[in-house]
Amino acid sequence: MIERRKPISVGEAVQRIMEWKKYGDEEYVSIEKSDGRFLSQPLKADHDVPHFDRSPYDGFAIRSEDTDSCSNEQPIQLEVVDEIGAGQVSSFHLKQNQAIRIMTGAAIPSGADCVIMLELTSEAEKDGKKFITIKRKMKKGENISFQGEDAKKGDKLIEEGTKVNPGVKALLATFGYNQVPVVRRPIIGVLATGSELLEVDEPLQSGKIRNSNGHMIISQVERAGGVVRRYGQCEDHLEDVLKTVQLAVEECDFVITTGGVSVGDFDYLPEIYDRLGAKKLFNKIAMRPGSVTTAAVCNGKLLFGLSGNPSACYVGFELYVRPIIRYWLHQSKPFLAKGTAILQKDFPKANPFNRFVRSQLHYGEGGRLFVSPVGLDKSNVVTSLAWANCLMVLPGGTRGFKTGDLVDVLLLEDETGSDVPWQESKKSSKL
Amino acid sequence: MIERRKPISVGEAVQRIMEWKKYGDEEYVSIEKSDGRFLSQPLKADHDVPHFDRSPYDGFAIRSEDTDSCSNEQPIQLEVVDEIGAGQVSSFHLKQNQAIRIMTGAAIPSGADCVIMLELTSEAEKDGKKFITIKRKMKKGENISFQGEDAKKGDKLIEEGTKVNPGVKALLATFGYNQVPVVRRPIIGVLATGSELLEVDEPLQSGKIRNSNGHMIISQVERAGGVVRRYGQCEDHLEDVLKTVQLAVEECDFVITTGGVSVGDFDYLPEIYDRLGAKKLFNKIAMRPGSVTTAAVCNGKLLFGLSGNPSACYVGFELYVRPIIRYWLHQSKPFLAKGTAILQKDFPKANPFNRFVRSQLHYGEGGRLFVSPVGLDKSNVVTSLAWANCLMVLPGGTRGFKTGDLVDVLLLEDETGSDVPWQESKKSSKL
Repeated sequence: MIERRKPISVGEAVQRIMEWKKYGDEEYVSIEKSDGRFLSQPLKADHDVPHFDRSPYDGFAIRSEDTDSCSNEQPIQLEVVDEIGAGQVSSFHLKQNQAIRIMTGAAIPSGADCVIMLELTSEAEKDGKKFITIKRKMKKGENISFQGEDAKKGDKLIEEGTKVNPGVKALLATFGYNQVPVVRRPIIGVLATGSELLEVDEPLQSGKIRNSNGHMIISQVERAGGVVRRYGQCEDHLEDVLKTVQLAVEECDFVITTGGVSVGDFDYLPEIYDRLGAKKLFNKIAMRPGSVTTAAVCNGKLLFGLSGNPSACYVGFELYVRPIIRYWLHQSKPFLAKGTAILQKDFPKANPFNRFVRSQLHYGEGGRLFVSPVGLDKSNVVTSLAWANCLMVLPGGTRGFKTGDLVDVLLLEDETGSDVPWQESKKSSKL
Repeated sequence: MIERRKPISVGEAVQRIMEWKKYGDEEYVSIEKSDGRFLSQPLKADHDVPHFDRSPYDGFAIRSEDTDSCSNEQPIQLEVVDEIGAGQVSSFHLKQNQAIRIMTGAAIPSGADCVIMLELTSEAEKDGKKFITIKRKMKKGENISFQGEDAKKGDKLIEEGTKVNPGVKALLATFGYNQVPVVRRPIIGVLATGSELLEVDEPLQSGKIRNSNGHMIISQVERAGGVVRRYGQCEDHLEDVLKTVQLAVEECDFVITTGGVSVGDFDYLPEIYDRLGAKKLFNKIAMRPGSVTTAAVCNGKLLFGLSGNPSACYVGFELYVRPIIRYWLHQSKPFLAKGTAILQKDFPKANPFNRFVRSQLHYGEGGRLFVSPVGLDKSNVVTSLAWANCLMVLPGGTRGFKTGDLVDVLLLEDETGSDVPWQESKKSSKL
């Protein structure tokens, strides 16, 4: 007997999943290995930056009042009494009409209140003493990087849950994080099911295809910030799949299966959920592709049943699994960032349900963002996935879209994220 | 004596660098380790996708002509003569008024020319035979994924130089790339110079700061697709630095030094270039930050002398080193992707030179892109780097900018890239 499944909305599906979200534990990694990891604590400045008044230029530290009467016509001469290399501190206290040679990044000597750039001076020697000539009036504080102007001790500089990128790493180094507190990556069990699946290195056979979803999901999990534990691929034998899923639930934080989620005789995931004693969250969503995406909870752990169709599998992952991983990693914006863009190509197909179309963004003139769908829009299509850097969202209940229409886009390469998921507006959620 | 350096334009500097670009060699890695690598060959379909006519749904394979007179009022019955699981092939040839049960992804049996979804049928048994009832007329070809509709054998699906992401990986798996041809990553020697530099785990001292550039550049190199060989940090001793740079040139494909590029007494990079017999490409660029970025060529290998100031170092890397790495990796679009965005905040400072401001993009309503600068805009500032996901470009020779003005932005997180570098328009290149 065929179960007539009742589709729920995308927003509702995300909400049911997020009720089971969990926060990952902390671990420490060396700064060298911290790229791409997510901070488990906010990064606070434990000292002022800079932590002393510094010179941002090569030049001379001087007293501004000595230049009060100075001009192109009335140059002044100052005696150079010391020289401060980067990393050095001068023991001199600058007195009237004295200057101290100072290098980029060095500490401003006491008595000085400004720095004149080297290029604006000329040097001379007289009686074994060094002098510089200055032809311009300087202001108090000119060319000084003041202690704390970049960051004050105690400032919260980065939120917890931030992904370590080159800029974050610069800050970690600045504040002496030789060991970096990060969130332990969630371990995601991945199992591809389907008797039609061949391994990557097997020759093609009639009726069979190579398992592309398994490899794709591993990459998606890693891009999202998780780690995969692979459970290979299973033929469509209920007992085998059941045993493997059971093991995965024990060993992992979350479990993803692909295939076996449709309504056919061989789609036994519902029965597996039953036998595991798992609580079903949903098994049909009003969206294309990926309508057969299912989710369940077993021993408090989420099980995601993604479609066996590559595009449906891809979209299901980004909409429902990614936010769970990003929340685990303490991100306050775990959802795909949303933008709006101008459609560059007609999309005549009607959209009985919300449609998530693999698409490419283009940054144009006039502060405008353009989007065009890539390749065929069918759930079993694999080629278009390689070219997509966003998902264009066409709300359910709409007819075709035309060039120039505004559409929502969800960004796949952005790391900023969103604190709210994409969801149906009031109008389009009437399904 | 101080050298009066003559600044060249950003466009000119990029051009001088790109004259020394090189193409990296090929190596093979397993598909599991191919994430983030760049393909050394275009990926061509070596078979049609799908490689047989498939059913995209669970249902029944039937002959459309049998349904010609069929309607809600005049349902028809077809006898179910076989069942095809995914991965199986039926030996039956479908005859008049027969149907074959077919699972998602399975091969269409001979004689059938369409598939009716399971949900649209009802099953019954009579005299030990199975029948289905159908209440709708079907079209020839309906619900069939035809051989080659996703990709035809011989189609070039992905350009060489493409970065492996989840979608690319799905294609690699589909076409049996157990071993993936990728470009060998360039080895980039990195040396931080400056007597003011402390290691990350050293306590702060007056006049000294921790070496943040070294760690930052390692991340930037890896984000761009290269591998770093670390030469640690050197005090400002000419002979030590010379020896280290010499070694790095021998062992690496490119070399980056930070610090030692300014005009002060202790900035000895020009002398090091001389003693290495390196050809100077430039030592001053009309830009902020990063005006003291220098480049030279030694034994055909590029040496980049980036500023010791974090923000200047960061920008210098993205504008001049990144494209060299991406070209090496066979990317046809090695430069940062450019967009335009609407400024969300006044930027009152005048811009005597092109200014590259660490900024954050926001995706707004109406297909619009917004940008706002993050943190202080000074070259020695480190905190703003952590928050930036783009560089806003304010052309030289302009006064301040106002909220609502349109500005160019260079995207740091995008992987699409650009085939042309950002460069001064005719107007702003008059320096």
